[in-house]
Amino acid sequence: MSESGSVHVGVDIGGTKVLAAEVSPAGEVLRTAHRSTPGRRVELELVEDALTEAVTEVAAGRPVAGVGLAAAGFVDAAGERVMFAPHLPWRGEPTLSRLSERWGTRVALDNDANCAALAELELGAARGVDSALLITLGTGIGGAVVLDGRVVRGRNGMAGEFGHMQVVPGGLPCECGLTGCWEQYSSGNALVAFVRARVETEEYAGCALDELAAGDPLKITGPAVTAAAARGDALALAAYESVGSWLGVGMAGLVAAFDPELLVVGGGVSTAGDLLLGPARTALEASLVGRHHRDVPRIVTTAFGAEAGVVGASILARRLTSSPGRDQT
Amino acid sequence: MSESGSVHVGVDIGGTKVLAAEVSPAGEVLRTAHRSTPGRRVELELVEDALTEAVTEVAAGRPVAGVGLAAAGFVDAAGERVMFAPHLPWRGEPTLSRLSERWGTRVALDNDANCAALAELELGAARGVDSALLITLGTGIGGAVVLDGRVVRGRNGMAGEFGHMQVVPGGLPCECGLTGCWEQYSSGNALVAFVRARVETEEYAGCALDELAAGDPLKITGPAVTAAAARGDALALAAYESVGSWLGVGMAGLVAAFDPELLVVGGGVSTAGDLLLGPARTALEASLVGRHHRDVPRIVTTAFGAEAGVVGASILARRLTSSPGRDQT
Amino acid sequence: MSESGSVHVGVDIGGTKVLAAEVSPAGEVLRTAHRSTPGRRVELELVEDALTEAVTEVAAGRPVAGVGLAAAGFVDAAGERVMFAPHLPWRGEPTLSRLSERWGTRVALDNDANCAALAELELGAARGVDSALLITLGTGIGGAVVLDGRVVRGRNGMAGEFGHMQVVPGGLPCECGLTGCWEQYSSGNALVAFVRARVETEEYAGCALDELAAGDPLKITGPAVTAAAARGDALALAAYESVGSWLGVGMAGLVAAFDPELLVVGGGVSTAGDLLLGPARTALEASLVGRHHRDVPRIVTTAFGAEAGVVGASILARRLTSSPGRDQT
Amino acid sequence: MSESGSVHVGVDIGGTKVLAAEVSPAGEVLRTAHRSTPGRRVELELVEDALTEAVTEVAAGRPVAGVGLAAAGFVDAAGERVMFAPHLPWRGEPTLSRLSERWGTRVALDNDANCAALAELELGAARGVDSALLITLGTGIGGAVVLDGRVVRGRNGMAGEFGHMQVVPGGLPCECGLTGCWEQYSSGNALVAFVRARVETEEYAGCALDELAAGDPLKITGPAVTAAAARGDALALAAYESVGSWLGVGMAGLVAAFDPELLVVGGGVSTAGDLLLGPARTALEASLVGRHHRDVPRIVTTAFGAEAGVVGASILARRLTSSPGRDQT
Repeated sequence: MSESGSVHVGVDIGGTKVLAAEVSPAGEVLRTAHRSTPGRRVELELVEDALTEAVTEVAAGRPVAGVGLAAAGFVDAAGERVMFAPHLPWRGEPTLSRLSERWGTRVALDNDANCAALAELELGAARGVDSALLITLGTGIGGAVVLDGRVVRGRNGMAGEFGHMQVVPGGLPCECGLTGCWEQYSSGNALVAFVRARVETEEYAGCALDELAAGDPLKITGPAVTAAAARGDALALAAYESVGSWLGVGMAGLVAAFDPELLVVGGGVSTAGDLLLGPARTALEASLVGRHHRDVPRIVTTAFGAEAGVVGASILARRLTSSPGRDQT
Repeated sequence: MSESGSVHVGVDIGGTKVLAAEVSPAGEVLRTAHRSTPGRRVELELVEDALTEAVTEVAAGRPVAGVGLAAAGFVDAAGERVMFAPHLPWRGEPTLSRLSERWGTRVALDNDANCAALAELELGAARGVDSALLITLGTGIGGAVVLDGRVVRGRNGMAGEFGHMQVVPGGLPCECGLTGCWEQYSSGNALVAFVRARVETEEYAGCALDELAAGDPLKITGPAVTAAAARGDALALAAYESVGSWLGVGMAGLVAAFDPELLVVGGGVSTAGDLLLGPARTALEASLVGRHHRDVPRIVTTAFGAEAGVVGASILARRLTSSPGRDQT
Repeated sequence: MSESGSVHVGVDIGGTKVLAAEVSPAGEVLRTAHRSTPGRRVELELVEDALTEAVTEVAAGRPVAGVGLAAAGFVDAAGERVMFAPHLPWRGEPTLSRLSERWGTRVALDNDANCAALAELELGAARGVDSALLITLGTGIGGAVVLDGRVVRGRNGMAGEFGHMQVVPGGLPCECGLTGCWEQYSSGNALVAFVRARVETEEYAGCALDELAAGDPLKITGPAVTAAAARGDALALAAYESVGSWLGVGMAGLVAAFDPELLVVGGGVSTAGDLLLGPARTALEASLVGRHHRDVPRIVTTAFGAEAGVVGASILARRLTSSPGRDQT
Repeated sequence: MSESGSVHVGVDIGGTKVLAAEVSPAGEVLRTAHRSTPGRRVELELVEDALTEAVTEVAAGRPVAGVGLAAAGFVDAAGERVMFAPHLPWRGEPTLSRLSERWGTRVALDNDANCAALAELELGAARGVDSALLITLGTGIGGAVVLDGRVVRGRNGMAGEFGHMQVVPGGLPCECGLTGCWEQYSSGNALVAFVRARVETEEYAGCALDELAAGDPLKITGPAVTAAAARGDALALAAYESVGSWLGVGMAGLVAAFDPELLVVGGGVSTAGDLLLGPARTALEASLVGRHHRDVPRIVTTAFGAEAGVVGASILARRLTSSPGRDQT
């Protein structure tokens, strides 16, 4: 229980934006502050300044009982350092202790997918579920593992890195340096790449996205594809069919390995709902071993959407003061 | 604790053989009995008769305090039924209660890979390890998941079915009805298929395995390939290189998802040791996301080898009498 | 024009059988003789003896004006030697001159696919056509090229070796030592392999071919698959769908390269007619570049079927005496 | 023989530039005129105006004896119409007769790859060769077929469309509407795409091309990759290794089908010489059926380089007046 008058703050540090929030115990976002992510080539202080400003703005003069951080990157097993983040300068510094000292309060840290899973597990789509996988389709694929009602972090804090499982030998190159990674076939980037590669072909000449591109495929964005799909555009639907089918194929492998009760899909691409989940369900059914001898897990979308990370970070923050020691996620 | 003078029996029910054993608490196999597996087109009673004979032979007149069964097939989440087994007639009957009634003793049941993992975790290669994956290369691939020091069974009791994760879209057909399954590229069958397909080509004309085949590739067996590889035969080495590399590629995906501390490799193919594990380690390193920011898990072979299943079944049997209720694995 | 009373003999030297025949100028087979192919590990004389017997039997006491040989193997550019034949001992010996000397008559030689193409071009399905490709689906794929109304033999006499064009990178291993060859996906062997790999799966449990196999997939043969397909067996139809689709995909590449007027399909698999050609036509249409701007070539089956090779060999024989020098094919 | 004082003009109508030239009978380019290609969304007249201007400029007041046109697009079998050109408005209009009438002179037309092959065959790298394939690596792949010392045009004038043969099932999407086309793996576009996809990965951090991109992979161009490769840049070399290997793999299929004496490689990418041809030769050797029983064809670069099209067009123009009727290419 937090001290009277004090506030717990959750912070979601994404690739482009920092979102800090005060969240009620029931998961309601009460107050927020936004900053741009300073980028990966800047001084550490610049990032810490941005976080400090955001936390201060949310606190609004109240004492801060604890801060939870959700970071888009690799967080170590101890939850103390960001080992690598593609869009941030952190490379293994003792971020937790630096910020705790600077802010004079307790701080907790985990990666954004684990925080999102915590939010869904405690208060959202996975409430009451024993085992679940969270799969987030943003620019890439993020993931988290829930077993026995807890988020499993793994030996290095890196469990749930589903996006870089190879699904096509010698396939598309990935920014991670590998080839054929799942997120090259099923993610926001994959959705847009699918459309850009086909928008100027004869097959889709004159479709809405062709008009939008007007000769420059780079004008196509993810939200434009989603909007076009909602209006029935043939090329956008084909893109969702492809991305959704690959989602289901990858899910089938994960279900074979984990045998979970539930699959929770989040991220911007998931706002398309059944345009994405329909093909995913079909492919999951078709690709799952022993499908005649098991319950095929349900596929649902997240309850908290884009706020899942900050809500989970707030739960981390609350846990800092709810028990004698640091609770395990 | 078992009653004085009574015995716990472990039984490993494989595709071709039934092995029953008395095993010491330290994992030493003290006494065994063997039967052939009756096959999948026979009456249930015939299988139960074979099990009864094997248990009776091991008991040798002593009262039986409990029996643990390790079955090559899908065991339900409750550990009470074999839902499907490719080489056995079981299709969801209440096997546990039937045998418990027939034998007048307590009986426990799990699939063979989970039993093997239990043996390695309690007494073998994974002792003291918090998280590990067991990967067994027999005719196919079996697998089991250890997290938080326990074997994870999954929603349907089917966690660890790694062999049927798709690694090649539209790839080799699998007996499971899917295509491109991992075990088609990395298993005993894959090893033999690799050799059979190449033994008559000009490239390998006159190699030891070509002589052995003498015009009939079907004469090639797994042990013959392993023996030839040990003697440096070029074709056998190429087969191990292929199977080992695919092992490492698949492991990389599992490590991305689970982030375990240890990988334990068992099954007949693993007796080749570094012929298999060398290429696997190379491929794992090359294919693992974030390899510069993590501990790459060690790869070791099983401590119990072919006896891991029956040793694990014995541990299940012992647990039946070591606590008030049925313990969780 | 042959001398009065003398006979021209065509001989088709296949992997398992030798067929010699007297063929009328109109392509009618008048008289035949059969021998088994002696195999690849025998003395050359044994093969030459078999050919001599067959030719002698067909001649039936008449003088032999000329012999044409169609060989299943690589024939050199000059048409004088068999450089390699998988089922025969020939490895570049001066076969033509040896036989010509032994028989005291003129002899001509080409590979079996070129002979078959010659038969179809002169008297069969490609009569009056300027450009055509012959694609023969036997155990593998044979092929021949017709341009400007003539069979094109290529720099080494090896034009038309379509069967070993790679269609799947890192795909199925081929007896030729390469991987992913077209004939591994579209041929009699591919048809049988497709069925054998699936006949014991749950999906096809109880189908006619499963009954036929009775637990031993090696009992499945090509003719059995064709017969089952004709009766509507689901697995056999799936096999033809796969082999036919791959046929069309490969054809699309050949049509892009050659832009021929006609595609002639022969070999044992082609006796299934539209079961094979239907999926081939669909895949050709779907995979052909510029299909909206061209005539897609017709696909037909051979007129001479299994006799195309011996008919073409007879045409070669006749040409030996129809002009001052050796005519070009 | 042209009339005294008159001139033959060759015109190469490319995707971005129109090049008209007077070329000596020996292949020397004597005088040129350049225009921009007007684009595909313009009126036909605009294109014809540009061609007229360029021809007029080259003629420089002399009478025009004949014009040869090399067009980047599908030219019909009769050589009278451009059926489709990705960067031009032509869609089957009677271009030849329209221009012939407008210019009051004889006009010949073929696609640019066939014209280039004609130049190489008559005056360049393939002089004296009986059979050859021309493979041009520009933004895509162009191709042409020489057999019996003549350029083969095919049933629809479309022989040699090698770039759209499928080399990877379900592979990269192509602007032609198909997937897995060869030119997606081996062409100038493929070279640049390879680099753009990897330039920001950790593996190539700090390489010359990474510096050049400065965070924006779209800044990478083909000439920049070639320049970097010449200086030993690791990423540029990897790109040439990939594009060259795929070139060789595709060549192996074409050699299996055509069995030509020579392979001539042209286009901008070929200016890298052995950086490209080295990996191509290795892959061709490794992927060619019957390589122990044949002469593997030599691979050489074009003699005329970027001028091959206009030189070939000039040869077409000269042929218009060198014989009673229109000669065949």
